[in-house]
Amino acid sequence: MLSQFGDFLRIGLKLNVERPILAGVSGGPDSLCLLDLLHRHGFSVVVAHLDHGLRPESGAEARGMRLVAENLGLPFVLEACDVASLAKAQGLSLEEAARTVRYRFLFRQAGVYGAQAVAVGHNADDQVETVLMHFLRGAGLTGLEGMAAISLPNPWSDTIPLARPLLSVWREEILEYCQQRGLKPLFDSSNLDTGLFRNRLRQELIPALDEYIPGVRQRLWRMADLLAEDNAVLEELAAAARKICLASKGTGYLAFDARVLRDQSVAAQRRLIRWAVSELRPNIRDLDYAAVERALSLLKPLTPLAHQRDIALGLRAFLENGLLYIAAWDANLPIAQWPQITADDVLQIPGVVNLLAGWSLKGEFVRDLESVREQALENADPFRAWIDAGEIGSTLTVRGRRPGDSFQPLGMGGESTKLSDVMINEKIPRRARARWPLICTGEQIVWLPGFRIAHPFRLRPTTRHAIFLELSLSE
Amino acid sequence: MLSQFGDFLRIGLKLNVERPILAGVSGGPDSLCLLDLLHRHGFSVVVAHLDHGLRPESGAEARGMRLVAENLGLPFVLEACDVASLAKAQGLSLEEAARTVRYRFLFRQAGVYGAQAVAVGHNADDQVETVLMHFLRGAGLTGLEGMAAISLPNPWSDTIPLARPLLSVWREEILEYCQQRGLKPLFDSSNLDTGLFRNRLRQELIPALDEYIPGVRQRLWRMADLLAEDNAVLEELAAAARKICLASKGTGYLAFDARVLRDQSVAAQRRLIRWAVSELRPNIRDLDYAAVERALSLLKPLTPLAHQRDIALGLRAFLENGLLYIAAWDANLPIAQWPQITADDVLQIPGVVNLLAGWSLKGEFVRDLESVREQALENADPFRAWIDAGEIGSTLTVRGRRPGDSFQPLGMGGESTKLSDVMINEKIPRRARARWPLICTGEQIVWLPGFRIAHPFRLRPTTRHAIFLELSLSE
Repeated sequence: MLSQFGDFLRIGLKLNVERPILAGVSGGPDSLCLLDLLHRHGFSVVVAHLDHGLRPESGAEARGMRLVAENLGLPFVLEACDVASLAKAQGLSLEEAARTVRYRFLFRQAGVYGAQAVAVGHNADDQVETVLMHFLRGAGLTGLEGMAAISLPNPWSDTIPLARPLLSVWREEILEYCQQRGLKPLFDSSNLDTGLFRNRLRQELIPALDEYIPGVRQRLWRMADLLAEDNAVLEELAAAARKICLASKGTGYLAFDARVLRDQSVAAQRRLIRWAVSELRPNIRDLDYAAVERALSLLKPLTPLAHQRDIALGLRAFLENGLLYIAAWDANLPIAQWPQITADDVLQIPGVVNLLAGWSLKGEFVRDLESVREQALENADPFRAWIDAGEIGSTLTVRGRRPGDSFQPLGMGGESTKLSDVMINEKIPRRARARWPLICTGEQIVWLPGFRIAHPFRLRPTTRHAIFLELSLSE
Repeated sequence: MLSQFGDFLRIGLKLNVERPILAGVSGGPDSLCLLDLLHRHGFSVVVAHLDHGLRPESGAEARGMRLVAENLGLPFVLEACDVASLAKAQGLSLEEAARTVRYRFLFRQAGVYGAQAVAVGHNADDQVETVLMHFLRGAGLTGLEGMAAISLPNPWSDTIPLARPLLSVWREEILEYCQQRGLKPLFDSSNLDTGLFRNRLRQELIPALDEYIPGVRQRLWRMADLLAEDNAVLEELAAAARKICLASKGTGYLAFDARVLRDQSVAAQRRLIRWAVSELRPNIRDLDYAAVERALSLLKPLTPLAHQRDIALGLRAFLENGLLYIAAWDANLPIAQWPQITADDVLQIPGVVNLLAGWSLKGEFVRDLESVREQALENADPFRAWIDAGEIGSTLTVRGRRPGDSFQPLGMGGESTKLSDVMINEKIPRRARARWPLICTGEQIVWLPGFRIAHPFRLRPTTRHAIFLELSLSE
């Protein structure tokens, strides 16, 4: 591998020898080997080092790295960060915090130096450890495929690729190379700490697995390669599915067209839910299998309407108006599509009450009842209502629902029902119910705008005076 | 799980309580539990037992199973087989031979009894062991997805599904169930043999992994479920790709349209090669990663024509006429599409020589040379040739190539070239070269039918007598 390294950089990774590469160099064998190889193959390298401030010797190590860069005549960028404090402040593990800070630093500097890529020193053993770690956690394909030798877009940039030129080189080969070239890698004592999961895999589990199946490292490395191609196909399909399924997106929420989503393969559905969660919670890398299944359970045919389920990470899923929402519990979801009141109000007849977002309620006396009586009795338009004005006078109130509200929907035999049940049956979205306008006289509900009038206020043959009500949305 | 077992059988596995199920019952806890559950849920079960003849007590065990079936009032089918001899005869491992014999027996009997399905006792732990085994071998998705709770088609039938109703039930639950129900499972001493790979996984490796990641069994079980959905999508895509890529198929070979195959995703290409190998070698379950890559390497743009590569299992891959062949080394590949001789022959002018598969060569003197001279000089049809008859007389020979044959193709400046190089340049398929007809006079090649005449025999302004030759295929 190392003998064809130049070809691999140019052809395999499509790196251009004319343009700078920013290399993340910790000082360990991998990154020193990477730096030396890039330099020997004629690439102009910017050496970037992050002092994580986690060990007392880190400052001295940073100075050592500066010397290495200077001896090669290469630019050196240093940044120091108190990773431990940052991890504490953000509630991240040390490894996670270090990783985040490091990659942000590298990509920021790559932008500054106009680098064609950020290169890091992950080797074939790192790949195998990554795959094994994901396997043991029961990850899906996206974990099992491991790292990519070149990835764009990546979590840190849509324009600068992340390159891992040593991904198919084994650790032994790298150590041997360092020795032959007289490179002096730093020794990171944390690599010996078997309290760290990755170190236990490296030092205990992988050697043990190799006794079960000789060559297990090579096998797992190749498997990752196979699975990456499989995953690429599935990701492409999922991206296509996303285009036709995504119905709306806003701060703290996403909504899929439930009917279209149901038509996708389960594999695509799961990827779409994972994608939605990653859009809403960009810093989370692992999402539990069961969380995805909870969201998808809402697509089953017999799921009660207005049912909602906790996903994880402060997110919930619910069905509404044919949409499957994935939303933060505290998200300010859009309600502009429904009529909503701001406060209780009075509707003078004739007169108008304005609601939120362009909706309004209008009331007027019917001047010539006989000419509209037939239309009124056969009315099928839920946005219009004709009611008996007999006992009402010229004032109606517009208010939101109150505990204990009941309602006698027209056409239900005059039976009185809990308003909350009517709202559920009528599929009024849960979050729109509290501020849904109710037209009342005294405590009694006269009309549930958009749905039905109340039985006691229906037009009768004896009705002489009627009021016409209308709910409308200005364009 | 066991509490909703009836629902799972009817809804999850779509089994019909009115129709018989054939259950493979070894007598171990899994199959006894399965039998008991199916019986209690009202299914009419045919109890099938194969005596593998591997342990001295196997005959007594078979009689015990007959009693179990009789006590439940169920039909019992027994077959005895000397698996050890069979394994030796077929060069298979004991496990592999036992598996093959067992499933053939079960599906054959399922046909006899008109069973709606064959049910076997694999449990959730078996699933995890299977997934882990495939992982360690570096298998692709098709291994990592593990077993399916219901599979049709399966390797043994296109019409009778294989059901694994206990696939989501853990071994502990099954043992507990057996105890509660007073079932008396047979004890299979081979389960303790840690020389067997699966037993080592079960007894040593999985408990060890559980210390790395608690709940690793559940995680791997769920992962298999995820990956099965992913694989289903990819298999469907591969089946669609197969339809448009497969160009021909015969005994011992398959051929894909190389151009169409190149347009597929690498994931689909790999699946197609695996499929081709499984069609040609149906008993082989694992195919090496590198073998697939060797076959696919022929699709790279710079692959020399007529290049061929050994795949594995006595199969090779080669490109020919725009087709990628996967073929047994000893396969009798079709050559009907090319002219081929059976033996050396004489072409009397005028006269005809018949070749294989409807091809023939005809020769005649040109009666009125002037009337065809222009056509002859401008001839672009490689199946026809006009040659100077000056030194030939009325006899030509038709023969196959001989070592050292050289040829002076017309239009190459009269230069003499090795015939074998001409054949390669002209893309004559490798296997058609030895018996490709050559029209000769003495040792000299006059015409390579289907391609070019030789420079010395071209028509010249001074030519007075000419011979017309034609290669044709009767419909």
